[in-house]
Amino acid sequence: MSKLWGGRFEKETDRAVEIFTASIGVDERLWQVDIVGSIAHVRMLGQQGIISLPESQEIIRGLKSVQEDIASDLAAGKVTFRAEAEDIHSEVERLLTEKIGPVAGKLHTARSRNDQVATDSRLYLRDQVAAVQKDILVLQNWLITTAEKHTETVLPGLTHMQHAQPVSLAHHLMAYFWMFQRDAERFTDSLKRINVLPLGSAALAGTSFPLDREAVARDLGFASVSENSLDAVSDRDFVVEFLSGASLMMMHLSRMAEELILWSTPEFGFVRLDDSVTTGSSIMPQKKNPDVAELIRGKVGRVYGALMGALTLLKALPLAYNRDLQEDKTFLFEGLDTVHSSLKLMTLMLSSAYFDTERMSGALKGDFSNATDLADDLVVHGMTFRQAHEVTGRIVRFCIEANVGIEDLSLAELQQFSPLFTDSILAKVKPVAVMQARTSAGGTGTKAVLEQIAKARKVVKAVVTLA
Amino acid sequence: MSKLWGGRFEKETDRAVEIFTASIGVDERLWQVDIVGSIAHVRMLGQQGIISLPESQEIIRGLKSVQEDIASDLAAGKVTFRAEAEDIHSEVERLLTEKIGPVAGKLHTARSRNDQVATDSRLYLRDQVAAVQKDILVLQNWLITTAEKHTETVLPGLTHMQHAQPVSLAHHLMAYFWMFQRDAERFTDSLKRINVLPLGSAALAGTSFPLDREAVARDLGFASVSENSLDAVSDRDFVVEFLSGASLMMMHLSRMAEELILWSTPEFGFVRLDDSVTTGSSIMPQKKNPDVAELIRGKVGRVYGALMGALTLLKALPLAYNRDLQEDKTFLFEGLDTVHSSLKLMTLMLSSAYFDTERMSGALKGDFSNATDLADDLVVHGMTFRQAHEVTGRIVRFCIEANVGIEDLSLAELQQFSPLFTDSILAKVKPVAVMQARTSAGGTGTKAVLEQIAKARKVVKAVVTLA
Amino acid sequence: MSKLWGGRFEKETDRAVEIFTASIGVDERLWQVDIVGSIAHVRMLGQQGIISLPESQEIIRGLKSVQEDIASDLAAGKVTFRAEAEDIHSEVERLLTEKIGPVAGKLHTARSRNDQVATDSRLYLRDQVAAVQKDILVLQNWLITTAEKHTETVLPGLTHMQHAQPVSLAHHLMAYFWMFQRDAERFTDSLKRINVLPLGSAALAGTSFPLDREAVARDLGFASVSENSLDAVSDRDFVVEFLSGASLMMMHLSRMAEELILWSTPEFGFVRLDDSVTTGSSIMPQKKNPDVAELIRGKVGRVYGALMGALTLLKALPLAYNRDLQEDKTFLFEGLDTVHSSLKLMTLMLSSAYFDTERMSGALKGDFSNATDLADDLVVHGMTFRQAHEVTGRIVRFCIEANVGIEDLSLAELQQFSPLFTDSILAKVKPVAVMQARTSAGGTGTKAVLEQIAKARKVVKAVVTLA
Amino acid sequence: MSKLWGGRFEKETDRAVEIFTASIGVDERLWQVDIVGSIAHVRMLGQQGIISLPESQEIIRGLKSVQEDIASDLAAGKVTFRAEAEDIHSEVERLLTEKIGPVAGKLHTARSRNDQVATDSRLYLRDQVAAVQKDILVLQNWLITTAEKHTETVLPGLTHMQHAQPVSLAHHLMAYFWMFQRDAERFTDSLKRINVLPLGSAALAGTSFPLDREAVARDLGFASVSENSLDAVSDRDFVVEFLSGASLMMMHLSRMAEELILWSTPEFGFVRLDDSVTTGSSIMPQKKNPDVAELIRGKVGRVYGALMGALTLLKALPLAYNRDLQEDKTFLFEGLDTVHSSLKLMTLMLSSAYFDTERMSGALKGDFSNATDLADDLVVHGMTFRQAHEVTGRIVRFCIEANVGIEDLSLAELQQFSPLFTDSILAKVKPVAVMQARTSAGGTGTKAVLEQIAKARKVVKAVVTLA
Repeated sequence: MSKLWGGRFEKETDRAVEIFTASIGVDERLWQVDIVGSIAHVRMLGQQGIISLPESQEIIRGLKSVQEDIASDLAAGKVTFRAEAEDIHSEVERLLTEKIGPVAGKLHTARSRNDQVATDSRLYLRDQVAAVQKDILVLQNWLITTAEKHTETVLPGLTHMQHAQPVSLAHHLMAYFWMFQRDAERFTDSLKRINVLPLGSAALAGTSFPLDREAVARDLGFASVSENSLDAVSDRDFVVEFLSGASLMMMHLSRMAEELILWSTPEFGFVRLDDSVTTGSSIMPQKKNPDVAELIRGKVGRVYGALMGALTLLKALPLAYNRDLQEDKTFLFEGLDTVHSSLKLMTLMLSSAYFDTERMSGALKGDFSNATDLADDLVVHGMTFRQAHEVTGRIVRFCIEANVGIEDLSLAELQQFSPLFTDSILAKVKPVAVMQARTSAGGTGTKAVLEQIAKARKVVKAVVTLA
Repeated sequence: MSKLWGGRFEKETDRAVEIFTASIGVDERLWQVDIVGSIAHVRMLGQQGIISLPESQEIIRGLKSVQEDIASDLAAGKVTFRAEAEDIHSEVERLLTEKIGPVAGKLHTARSRNDQVATDSRLYLRDQVAAVQKDILVLQNWLITTAEKHTETVLPGLTHMQHAQPVSLAHHLMAYFWMFQRDAERFTDSLKRINVLPLGSAALAGTSFPLDREAVARDLGFASVSENSLDAVSDRDFVVEFLSGASLMMMHLSRMAEELILWSTPEFGFVRLDDSVTTGSSIMPQKKNPDVAELIRGKVGRVYGALMGALTLLKALPLAYNRDLQEDKTFLFEGLDTVHSSLKLMTLMLSSAYFDTERMSGALKGDFSNATDLADDLVVHGMTFRQAHEVTGRIVRFCIEANVGIEDLSLAELQQFSPLFTDSILAKVKPVAVMQARTSAGGTGTKAVLEQIAKARKVVKAVVTLA
Repeated sequence: MSKLWGGRFEKETDRAVEIFTASIGVDERLWQVDIVGSIAHVRMLGQQGIISLPESQEIIRGLKSVQEDIASDLAAGKVTFRAEAEDIHSEVERLLTEKIGPVAGKLHTARSRNDQVATDSRLYLRDQVAAVQKDILVLQNWLITTAEKHTETVLPGLTHMQHAQPVSLAHHLMAYFWMFQRDAERFTDSLKRINVLPLGSAALAGTSFPLDREAVARDLGFASVSENSLDAVSDRDFVVEFLSGASLMMMHLSRMAEELILWSTPEFGFVRLDDSVTTGSSIMPQKKNPDVAELIRGKVGRVYGALMGALTLLKALPLAYNRDLQEDKTFLFEGLDTVHSSLKLMTLMLSSAYFDTERMSGALKGDFSNATDLADDLVVHGMTFRQAHEVTGRIVRFCIEANVGIEDLSLAELQQFSPLFTDSILAKVKPVAVMQARTSAGGTGTKAVLEQIAKARKVVKAVVTLA
Repeated sequence: MSKLWGGRFEKETDRAVEIFTASIGVDERLWQVDIVGSIAHVRMLGQQGIISLPESQEIIRGLKSVQEDIASDLAAGKVTFRAEAEDIHSEVERLLTEKIGPVAGKLHTARSRNDQVATDSRLYLRDQVAAVQKDILVLQNWLITTAEKHTETVLPGLTHMQHAQPVSLAHHLMAYFWMFQRDAERFTDSLKRINVLPLGSAALAGTSFPLDREAVARDLGFASVSENSLDAVSDRDFVVEFLSGASLMMMHLSRMAEELILWSTPEFGFVRLDDSVTTGSSIMPQKKNPDVAELIRGKVGRVYGALMGALTLLKALPLAYNRDLQEDKTFLFEGLDTVHSSLKLMTLMLSSAYFDTERMSGALKGDFSNATDLADDLVVHGMTFRQAHEVTGRIVRFCIEANVGIEDLSLAELQQFSPLFTDSILAKVKPVAVMQARTSAGGTGTKAVLEQIAKARKVVKAVVTLA
């Protein structure tokens, strides 16, 4: 097909240049939003009398027919788009022209590819963000449901990877719930800036045609229209904002993946991943590897890289549209695909995981994670915390040398370190008691955790209602 | 000073380790929020009867006195914090102890440095985000005010750095207004996740003391309390979210800086920066360099780097607090300082800049940025756009060879390319007319721009009212 | 095909897990090096008597036959690899088994996929680095050849984007020559660490089979064998080192692209890119856009992103092999593809570019880039440089007000500023003379530049001889 | 002090601009190399007769005296540089002028700050790279020495964090030796591109003074002089190349740190860090935290961030010097400081670490990391590996159910799975035997490891000889 812009050119474009500048391999997935956007545009053109109503209707019919063709071709596994196409926009227009002839040319009235591609990207991302939020919700629901079963399951809570204080498995799982909740809310906030219509900005300066941009926005479900055409065709903030949110979310997944890998080691043994989500070794017959968790942990690099790439792309670009911007979609789609698959696989892996609660509670035996409570007890009996800390430190050293736990000491033994200890201390240093003692809001005590879960159910429900 | 945690240790900490792990050089700027946070904490301790009311009052008096001392020392340029201190939290406690004696030790009841540092960081960032938003507002006000004066000043609007269509300087400046508006809104959104109180999470699991966390939150102006203690002490999302927003904002500044540098070249000559914001060369007597713009452009790397550093830091960290997190403040403060100074200097530079509107309009002479309007005119007279594009392309080639502009052609000359041209075309291809023709919403035509400015005034006022 | 590691597993792998963990879509391009590596391995197995010689020969024949099949299928555009394959290694083994039956299983003796994939990656990258160096050489040759034609073509040399001193186009082009020379040398250095054989490390600990690793290294052209099996299967330094070098090289290309974009503006007009490497606009008939340069500038983000992704991937991974490492190839191939295409397209674009030497020299008229030489002349006549700088500064201000250049002043006019000026100054301030005056080694004077080009020819020849 | 470039300026520089553009806070550490570079420059000026010999000698005396003053001031803890200075170069010149009067002005003859700062940075980095290599060597020496003691100490070798095969502690430690060896070699390679003299390039184009750049290079120990002045003043590749190498090295340290943290957990217990390099908790009396390892792991983000910042800085900068480049030093020094302290602290931490070899070998009990050898034995007795893998898989499942290890099975029990087993198998499955069996080059068997250590000693000695 001869170029649409040959007038002032005396030579053909070099084939290598066509290949280098083409984006069809990346942007083909925009075909549907491209058509949807075009239908809204052309409907408005007809309503405003910019083209005739019958022309408008014919183009819409044509676009819908192209849409059906592509959908059925894809469903049948047939390749639809020509590798030699420049981009999805020109490819859709070509298919339309094949179907309805030259009137197809009127579709591009009062529109440029600069505002068209920005519109397509926003339409696509808007839907994808909703889909990501749904993925998150599924994972959050698993977290809540599982937490509810484990409000009294204790395991070592760690700081610096050292046993610190016992916490419940419910509390541990809910920590991730809130991370993902922030992720979901951040995505919701980003929609304010994604869901804005750039169409009508034309190449860079607006157009002299009497457009009704608000009508197009309503038609396509955009919350508002862009306020400045120069900004509209060169703004890719929404790509960076999505990738920033996605980076945070992948970081959260990487933390969870790290713990699952760690907990799967024979040394920890807190979790056993199902055969269906692990793999073996062709050499070592005993191996059962947490590959899915490892890959999720690794894929955080993909999204960080995409974010850094997009930021680099945009550095110091003068107004308005520059061809560099075409590269934005590689980063965006890389981020989206990684986020989707990682969330889904994490949920799949967790759903079939077996938590070995005996190993968890067993790990608390003699681990001194009840030392704080020993000190607190002395404080309650009148010692300053500083002294109590010192006394407890000496008890810990004694236990290490004697190779026993604090909970193994008799009252008499304890009283050798301080006469302030009374009978009640023996119950207080049991792991479950230690966990239960943390009753402050947001703490690991069962009552506090149940309140936490109740709040979680509420925010999750709020999101569901919204969507 | 002997360590607060020596009980189970048999050896002194190596001095090199103390230096390596100390953070006082970085976190000393948190001194004020640290004291403010401590006052709220200790007031609540007193109200809840966790310590006695008189104790609580004595500690508060002591803290206020320490605050005054530090403030006056700093004002006098006297160094207050000892280089050998571990961090600002222990340094403040030391100063308090010097002032009021051992009762100072009760300040740390039911609190850990893990929740304390998270509280300090959030208090500090919350205020700083508001300060950044104020910096943005000052720049936005300059943009609006200057735009209002230039709604009819024309210059070449560029795509691909090539002259595309004339735009008004007002429209160009307002493009930046909206970028900064998104930045400001993003920061506002981030406050929802910054302005949450972690205090009360203690080391990781909450505490057995009967805290009133809501009271502390109210006292400190936090909108809510954190829901999960494990999450609260290990969450640094707010640092990353700030740096993501800051990266976008610096990217916008880098685009603006790039244009100022470009416009300052003798080739463009659209702007002359004031002597007071440029520098010369010790070698080349003629030089006047836009150093401020160059440095702003360069400093975008600082913030991108800080973002990447923070994301790297957090990758795959297991729950809950890990010492790695201490590094977050380096990135956060690097981002904050860069953003503040870059915004202020950009505004300073712009405020004294002289826009050479003659060079701007002169650049439109014979630049063919009116070619689209020539084609559009033919379309209005019945030619298809494709033909019109072709005809105009030929006119452009003719002009290039004849070394004249489209606006230099007579009607007779134009009619040699198409008889459809009429007298009216001669006025239509004048740059100002071309600019004015773009009347669509968000376009560069004066009426559209005035509406844009009116909206901008409204959103800016909305922010001011909120703050 | 049933898994090779099913023994201890009771359940089938979930299909979603198979898809998530499969790498065939990425690593299929390793098919050839995989076969080449396998041939070397199996030849050694035969020679060492680990398998029988006839077995070894049969497997080699089979592998060569598979190689031919794949090559001819690919040439014919037929898809060879099954989408459901796990990776290219198992796919090649499957094809081999189809061809020669169960003896194919002996190929994997004393080998694990851990050392196999590391070997494949290194073989592939080694060849690709050589190919990248060849791409660089072609560009360097264009630079030298073009520089030779322009040793007396003057244009403004810029600092801070302001006219500083005249330089020759030759000198300007040669600046890029040396950047690419450093890139090429860096890649050569990296080969020392790429071209090391990991095969024989087995899964992680080496093997009990009596391997001759040196023989395999010789066979495959590796310069050495890895010294530690744990390191060998987990080392991806070579990926990061390549991406670091590639990032620097893309950065250099981005600088060149930026200048081409700038020089293509009507304001500069120093270069006119050929119609065959530029594109137009479907809307604006006058447009001729430097898309190729813009895309090269944009693609720097791809490589920076891949580098950051790879670094993130590797952070804090414990020994030895972890599945995360599978992601390395995405980053590596992304980097390689971008580097190849960007280098080739840059050369293509430059080869047909027209340098407008009149615009270049015209830009020096009245630009004061000869001011330093005016000051230097006063110094030669006895004035201190500080005074001379001051006097020249006043002359520049006078000229700006009078709207003339330094070279337009008469001797009499100059002498009004200082009586030290003599007749000779009038020749000295002409741009070509100013350029020629910089005779120091590495300077822009023609003689110095000719020496520079001679050295460049030598280093380029040295590389060619090596390759 | 009045500016050196005021001639054409009518206004004073704004104070905020002076602060924003000043670099003294960052570049003050270059004071010594700045003086050393100046001495070499001025000596050459004298030798070439560009200034008189007596002038040259007086300036050199003055510079040496300034050098002594600064050194003694710093030693005495007295602040030397004025906060209001623009940069270290002008500050040194000011101090020189105070000392020797106006003749100091001749120092800057035939030099610009553009080539001066590039020279200083390279001098500084060259020395620092050597210092980093020395830090590495100290760590490597510890690794070799410790490895020699542990060639028969076994621990579980991991893949996917699961027990794979037993390896010796020597082998494990030596894996890190080779990582650091690559780092050291990479730094050596980078010196080729660092150790090049830019001085003599002047502002951008060279100079008309008859410099002897080779003499200056010899004087300062540079291996060569830069070939192109435009490149020389704008090249910061050496900063990026250093930061790339530093990122890889920090990544290696982060892996080692991760393992130390992991091995310090009670679950692993393979290492006990000394009290002198760990810290406790003010709350939890039992805590002993591996803070140093955590901070090293965290600091990898600093260097990755600096690398990304530097790459961002350089993207798309046109020739030649731009003020953006001033920011390079922040990234460089950040990288250097982090690398130095992290290496030193890692060595300190390791030097006092206690390796619990009983916990290590104990971890191998019943862990099935000898399963491969069971299968290999069957292969030796004639079974195909595939069958052997299957049989061994079943044995593993049997053991898991019976809660015993492979080494706990009697010959009779083993023969129930396959009659091929003979008496010898009982010895073969003992962990040490399994480790010893890996005799291939680079494997974990003691003989192979001793050869590895011998090679390591040789490469380390080679480096020492070189330095």
